[in-house]
Amino acid sequence: MADELVLLDVHVSMFGMRVRIALAEKGIKYEYREENLANKSTLLLETNPVHKKIPVLIHNGKPICESLIIVQYIDEVWKDKSPLLPSDPYQRAQARFWADFVDKKVFDAGRKIWRTIGEELEAAKKELIDALEILEGELGDKPYFNGGSFGFSDLALITFYSWFHTYETCGNFSIEKHCPKLIKWAKRCMERESVSKSLADPITVYEFVLMLQKKYGH
Amino acid sequence: MADELVLLDVHVSMFGMRVRIALAEKGIKYEYREENLANKSTLLLETNPVHKKIPVLIHNGKPICESLIIVQYIDEVWKDKSPLLPSDPYQRAQARFWADFVDKKVFDAGRKIWRTIGEELEAAKKELIDALEILEGELGDKPYFNGGSFGFSDLALITFYSWFHTYETCGNFSIEKHCPKLIKWAKRCMERESVSKSLADPITVYEFVLMLQKKYGH
Repeated sequence: MADELVLLDVHVSMFGMRVRIALAEKGIKYEYREENLANKSTLLLETNPVHKKIPVLIHNGKPICESLIIVQYIDEVWKDKSPLLPSDPYQRAQARFWADFVDKKVFDAGRKIWRTIGEELEAAKKELIDALEILEGELGDKPYFNGGSFGFSDLALITFYSWFHTYETCGNFSIEKHCPKLIKWAKRCMERESVSKSLADPITVYEFVLMLQKKYGH
Repeated sequence: MADELVLLDVHVSMFGMRVRIALAEKGIKYEYREENLANKSTLLLETNPVHKKIPVLIHNGKPICESLIIVQYIDEVWKDKSPLLPSDPYQRAQARFWADFVDKKVFDAGRKIWRTIGEELEAAKKELIDALEILEGELGDKPYFNGGSFGFSDLALITFYSWFHTYETCGNFSIEKHCPKLIKWAKRCMERESVSKSLADPITVYEFVLMLQKKYGH
């Protein structure tokens, strides 16, 4: 029986994009279903009753939730092609550490940039720049976070590149000025078809944010 | 060369206890070093410069940080004895999902219970009970979260059992009243030497919290 794969996702989601990159790296075909977060599908509510969030990957009827957990699942099931996590346990721990760092430090700071104004916005900008500078330091002069090849930590962070334009526009600052190596790394990642085809266009992301700001206020 | 293992930890930490359980499950000897969080050691600041938090496991000079990442590392390096994560990718994803749920929903709610008063405290109690009820529902009538054997999700949650007395005392409520199956599960886990020897005594935890409340106020 062929694998039946359905991805519940939202086009501009940095979490959803991670799963799309992983599936593209593995060359796996799947059915994409765009969710409307203002009116979630019954399938989403049934397959992720705990968090009610996208992305959800449904593999032969079984749902897997939380983007980094889904990516590890994909890497473990389709392990022969394009490994995303290194095989060495210490390297794996490092890859997981930096992916986790992105979730803990980059997402919230980024969200506050387009959701707040004044002092709160300034604090969020500092928080985001601090986090990105730590990542820039970890990257150093390596082509990818894990060294020579694109992997789990790269995948975890690169999807935020779609959102950089929004952060920079809403916060009136330049990420490249603070983190030039990170921008070079992002452009390097974008040369991979798995990444360039999975990432939402920065203008689309910005328009999505403008729509949310209009709907809910800052 | 024998493995050199050093654990930087704090006795009452639910995150540190996870690592101690994993090491005990694997029968691994290590040097335990108690940290003073009010005066962190140079070694802690050097081995976890990003978060500056315990636990840190230093394996032959290489530091690994973040409790669930450390536990996965231990499980991958010493894979032949007492596997903590299941071998099936879907079961592994489920185990990771529930461990992640504990980190996202139980810790913060618990902390707010002893750090706040009045309405905030009531909201935190509701938040904690809601999270524990979801876990109770997932556990159902199984002996352990993953089914028949003690594993990753059990290890992630059981260390909070040391803190239940503190939550109940500060919040004036009974967890068992809301989650009787979870308490039975906790007692079952406590029958394992790896758990009972790793968990801090509930009274010690409560005295630690009283000391913090006295020092910093609620």
